[in-house]
Amino acid sequence: MNMRAAVVTAFDKPLEIRDIPIPEPEAHQVLVRIEASGLCHTDIHAAHGDWPVKPALPFTPGHEGVGVIEKVGSAVTVRTVGERVAIPWLGYACGTCEYCVSGRETLCASQLNTGYAVNGGHAEYAVAHADYVVPVPDGVSPAEAAPLTCAGVTTYKAVKVSGLRPTERAAVFGIGGLGHLAQQYAQIFGAETIAVDITDDKLRLAEQLGAAHTVNAATGDPVAEIKALGGADVAIVLAASPRVLEQAHACLRRGGRLVLVSLPKDNAMSLPVFETVLGGISVIGSIVGTRADLAEVFRLHAAGRTEVIYETRKLDEINSSFAEVLDSTVPARLVFEM
Amino acid sequence: MNMRAAVVTAFDKPLEIRDIPIPEPEAHQVLVRIEASGLCHTDIHAAHGDWPVKPALPFTPGHEGVGVIEKVGSAVTVRTVGERVAIPWLGYACGTCEYCVSGRETLCASQLNTGYAVNGGHAEYAVAHADYVVPVPDGVSPAEAAPLTCAGVTTYKAVKVSGLRPTERAAVFGIGGLGHLAQQYAQIFGAETIAVDITDDKLRLAEQLGAAHTVNAATGDPVAEIKALGGADVAIVLAASPRVLEQAHACLRRGGRLVLVSLPKDNAMSLPVFETVLGGISVIGSIVGTRADLAEVFRLHAAGRTEVIYETRKLDEINSSFAEVLDSTVPARLVFEM
Amino acid sequence: MNMRAAVVTAFDKPLEIRDIPIPEPEAHQVLVRIEASGLCHTDIHAAHGDWPVKPALPFTPGHEGVGVIEKVGSAVTVRTVGERVAIPWLGYACGTCEYCVSGRETLCASQLNTGYAVNGGHAEYAVAHADYVVPVPDGVSPAEAAPLTCAGVTTYKAVKVSGLRPTERAAVFGIGGLGHLAQQYAQIFGAETIAVDITDDKLRLAEQLGAAHTVNAATGDPVAEIKALGGADVAIVLAASPRVLEQAHACLRRGGRLVLVSLPKDNAMSLPVFETVLGGISVIGSIVGTRADLAEVFRLHAAGRTEVIYETRKLDEINSSFAEVLDSTVPARLVFEM
Amino acid sequence: MNMRAAVVTAFDKPLEIRDIPIPEPEAHQVLVRIEASGLCHTDIHAAHGDWPVKPALPFTPGHEGVGVIEKVGSAVTVRTVGERVAIPWLGYACGTCEYCVSGRETLCASQLNTGYAVNGGHAEYAVAHADYVVPVPDGVSPAEAAPLTCAGVTTYKAVKVSGLRPTERAAVFGIGGLGHLAQQYAQIFGAETIAVDITDDKLRLAEQLGAAHTVNAATGDPVAEIKALGGADVAIVLAASPRVLEQAHACLRRGGRLVLVSLPKDNAMSLPVFETVLGGISVIGSIVGTRADLAEVFRLHAAGRTEVIYETRKLDEINSSFAEVLDSTVPARLVFEM
Ligand SMILES: [Zn+2]
Ligand SMILES: [Zn+2]
Ligand SMILES: [Zn+2]
Ligand SMILES: [Zn+2]
Ligand SMILES: [Zn+2]
Ligand SMILES: [Zn+2]
Ligand SMILES: [Zn+2]
Ligand SMILES: [Zn+2]
Repeated sequence: MNMRAAVVTAFDKPLEIRDIPIPEPEAHQVLVRIEASGLCHTDIHAAHGDWPVKPALPFTPGHEGVGVIEKVGSAVTVRTVGERVAIPWLGYACGTCEYCVSGRETLCASQLNTGYAVNGGHAEYAVAHADYVVPVPDGVSPAEAAPLTCAGVTTYKAVKVSGLRPTERAAVFGIGGLGHLAQQYAQIFGAETIAVDITDDKLRLAEQLGAAHTVNAATGDPVAEIKALGGADVAIVLAASPRVLEQAHACLRRGGRLVLVSLPKDNAMSLPVFETVLGGISVIGSIVGTRADLAEVFRLHAAGRTEVIYETRKLDEINSSFAEVLDSTVPARLVFEM
Repeated sequence: MNMRAAVVTAFDKPLEIRDIPIPEPEAHQVLVRIEASGLCHTDIHAAHGDWPVKPALPFTPGHEGVGVIEKVGSAVTVRTVGERVAIPWLGYACGTCEYCVSGRETLCASQLNTGYAVNGGHAEYAVAHADYVVPVPDGVSPAEAAPLTCAGVTTYKAVKVSGLRPTERAAVFGIGGLGHLAQQYAQIFGAETIAVDITDDKLRLAEQLGAAHTVNAATGDPVAEIKALGGADVAIVLAASPRVLEQAHACLRRGGRLVLVSLPKDNAMSLPVFETVLGGISVIGSIVGTRADLAEVFRLHAAGRTEVIYETRKLDEINSSFAEVLDSTVPARLVFEM
Repeated sequence: MNMRAAVVTAFDKPLEIRDIPIPEPEAHQVLVRIEASGLCHTDIHAAHGDWPVKPALPFTPGHEGVGVIEKVGSAVTVRTVGERVAIPWLGYACGTCEYCVSGRETLCASQLNTGYAVNGGHAEYAVAHADYVVPVPDGVSPAEAAPLTCAGVTTYKAVKVSGLRPTERAAVFGIGGLGHLAQQYAQIFGAETIAVDITDDKLRLAEQLGAAHTVNAATGDPVAEIKALGGADVAIVLAASPRVLEQAHACLRRGGRLVLVSLPKDNAMSLPVFETVLGGISVIGSIVGTRADLAEVFRLHAAGRTEVIYETRKLDEINSSFAEVLDSTVPARLVFEM
Repeated sequence: MNMRAAVVTAFDKPLEIRDIPIPEPEAHQVLVRIEASGLCHTDIHAAHGDWPVKPALPFTPGHEGVGVIEKVGSAVTVRTVGERVAIPWLGYACGTCEYCVSGRETLCASQLNTGYAVNGGHAEYAVAHADYVVPVPDGVSPAEAAPLTCAGVTTYKAVKVSGLRPTERAAVFGIGGLGHLAQQYAQIFGAETIAVDITDDKLRLAEQLGAAHTVNAATGDPVAEIKALGGADVAIVLAASPRVLEQAHACLRRGGRLVLVSLPKDNAMSLPVFETVLGGISVIGSIVGTRADLAEVFRLHAAGRTEVIYETRKLDEINSSFAEVLDSTVPARLVFEM
């Protein structure tokens, strides 16, 4: 049997939509019929070979794939046919190293990443390690589960590691596919949020989602405005620019925490040592989240605590969708529906 | 009655040793007859007016003053004449702000710093707020208590905020007045230590103090050598140079923590975002320590858990002592004995 | 000038409403004209001399007094005439011991408790240490601030020390003056709440306040019902009975935490060791909260995040009010309005 | 091929030493030739069927088995023939539940326990799940690794969850097979230790191992003596008696933590609520440790940080060894050498 899949054949060429055989699940794998697959900026980096360790060609990107298990490998016991699951960035981890055993599996040195080291979700079918897919609870639609699978869990984890708590103020820089979720998680952790963006549309969205304050960084000075509010206890930056990271640092109160999530092209942020030391500030790198974190993300959504803003596209629109993301013309997360 | 005091009269002139009146303690103050007063690099920054907010001239620097209480102000109840106390950098904090009340008094916005905003310990006498001097327990000599009062508590706190624990590896960059204490505290928290310095003398000292590994950064590549050992879980940098901070970051394992303590002239460290995010790394600013931290530092020393390396100088050698520190010709902390 | 005050003259007699002189603030004190003063069960224990260390007679109970500063002592700088403040249980702490300095002032061995060691808020005026009164922000009425001053901060702190976080389930046993606030704080920390009480009125209130589940412990088995929901991650017990504490322990999931707040007459709870060890369960004692905690409680209320259920009484109804509380006929916190 | 194994055939009969076939490892298992196997009190509970859920008969107890891998199952990739490994109490956990994924695998509801649900180490050979055996580093002998595999990791974890840190005081109640290790771990975490026992021999051992204070609970009052030292910040109780647990609670300072590890016959400890609340005390249940904890325990021993006191026995002495443990005539951990 064949399926359609988006395939990267060269780092400098558009993706091709190919007809290729549906893969067979190995002993520990499940075969998932994909219903929805979210488009993450990382997919574009993968397809362009932007990062030091490049994927082996050809490959199918996508690490927000959500669908129904159609087949399970011979050794699979934890999952069953018919379950809806998500296939996240952490496609596999060793399960025995100190990171895996101590609740930090996203730092496992043996991890395999979906849509990068192994084929991902931008296809009609995908295989995935049974232990690393995460069940999607009833009441969470595939199209909403998809963005939660990376954008959701990544920002949820960022909020978690920040130690944010009620009565603190969190500034979220960039209210897009990730930022609008970061804001909601900050609120769920009890904080007051400040949304920072450069378009009024996004700031209106942030307000609707419950932001206590909004700052237009195109027309105003976010550092001055946030300082005027008393400063931020936590800043989470989804805009992948060193300059924004530096602004975010500057708007922190004493004891504040800056969480790094996005990966700017210019890798280096200039960190002011004096202010960091005297302010007792921490800068915290956070990378996606564990399976337990993703289960929590789904649980919050099933309980009606979050709203996912997305638009759907068809899989054969993948190249124009990439362009939309790169042009920042897209208002929210894009999700391919199969 | 008069006393001798080292006085900064201009930011571009040497200090003068002057005969000035012994100050009278105000209601909440104690008058301390100084026995020993450690020389911290910050004293030099204060005397040179290096930092944005400069001290008001004239003033007496010194925030490692240790001595005996000779007089107490009318409202003092917590301290008594005859007690030996240390007068640390945190000369006063408000006691009521959220930082003071939540155990983070070193972040108090109303704090007054000894030897900077108020006269410090490089004199025969000093007055200090009774609530902010810290008793020196029996068995801790004034000359040893002095370096512990800033160098000790600063590095102790740095280790504390790093979350360092047994079976972890801590790399200490710069085995001088602060570094040799940082190393010992890392060991007291149960860790294995790697000492990094550019002179073999310092590395021999580190070995005697219990370092598991030493790295000469002048003749070898500290990043490569520490990575070969498996990387560091925690790096504490006492060498005030952005390049060393960047090396320290590069030698961290996944989940590692870089603690910033020293203040480089070139304020900006270049922070690699990609490595910080993917490695789940934290960069933590730490500023001196609270009174409770200093009491712990003294308690450890009284219990024989630390060794303080220092040399004594006379107060009228203060200008040559500054030169020694700036030339890096001094093997350890300098302490003025009165 | 005179004022009316409720005075305990003997542990076995009703309180007297007396006309006594308005106290003069000492150097570090403020004089507060009380607007509202909440009635806490502890007031009754104080008036009856129930606890090992009894108050010195005669005295005025009350540690939820809220009012406006009319006079400040000669040494007061942090507060000013005209400010509205609350006078909580922690009337004074030393400010220099390890507990005070490390953010745990409620454990200070030198603390003086309001309405117990020093006269409290059940009067037209009260003096209090300026550093230990807590400003009441605009938008929080005296009558609402009063219950927040003990019932609020106590339950807020209980939730805080439990480490409760989003996606966890918190069971609150006893939806009265404390419990209805505990429930709301648990929700603010992001958790799903289970309200347990023995009257349907209280459970209806809990539902209105956002409880996800309610359990009537008079008609059903709370352990079985909570276990059926998957168990509780955190249980907070406001019903002062060993049997309820034991039930609360039994309804915890693995890794669960039981927070002790209320003080049962029969002091001893029977703790099952086997279940505690195998379940990795913690039992945590929590006593009121710090000034910083109370400031957070007020901030949440000013932001519209909490609702305070109370009824007002006149000061000369204090003896019948005590009876109402003892008979459990009162639907919520009682507040004396002056 | 046959092997000798100690077999429980009935809960009311002595164990039999039987000749039975060497088991074949399943796909995910390894076959370990046992060199040393420590005797834990839990083995006796297992053999007697003391606990609610009893092992299925017949079975071989032992969860401190250490030996060399002789064969690996077809799907095993993480372990290789020739490696020395330990087979701990946690023989298997699901690897996918919230506990397993968040670093708390010892709370996994699907766990299988070695020497209880599956055959254990009191035999010449044992099979074990490859992912759950823990490598024994060079320089750690089998006879020393054995007690570390349960007694070591259990007490190490107890110290870890207590949050014990330098300058704190830890009281260890019962200096036997577990206690002498608990004391050493407390010291490695930087604390000052107080050893409590009823025999002077044990207290002398504790002194040799570095205890700062010793208390003979047979001839003195441990609560009074520990209070005279200032009280304990942490108490760890290895003597399985409710009365000792209650004493341990009574000797805590404000903010103290009591860690429950041992399982007394009389399951119920009487917990004083008043003292727990006012003292801000926590009671923490702790059950063995994870694979990562055990790896840390081995690493500390390989680094020369711990000393293991044990005596060896032959496997066919198992019944008399049980008797020795029950009579408390044994001075330390017993280890069967095969
Ligand atoms: Zn992504
Ligand atoms: Zn791993
Ligand atoms: Zn200094
Ligand atoms: Zn302050
Ligand atoms: Zn109260
Ligand atoms: Zn105190
Ligand atoms: Zn055991
Ligand atoms: Zn599990």
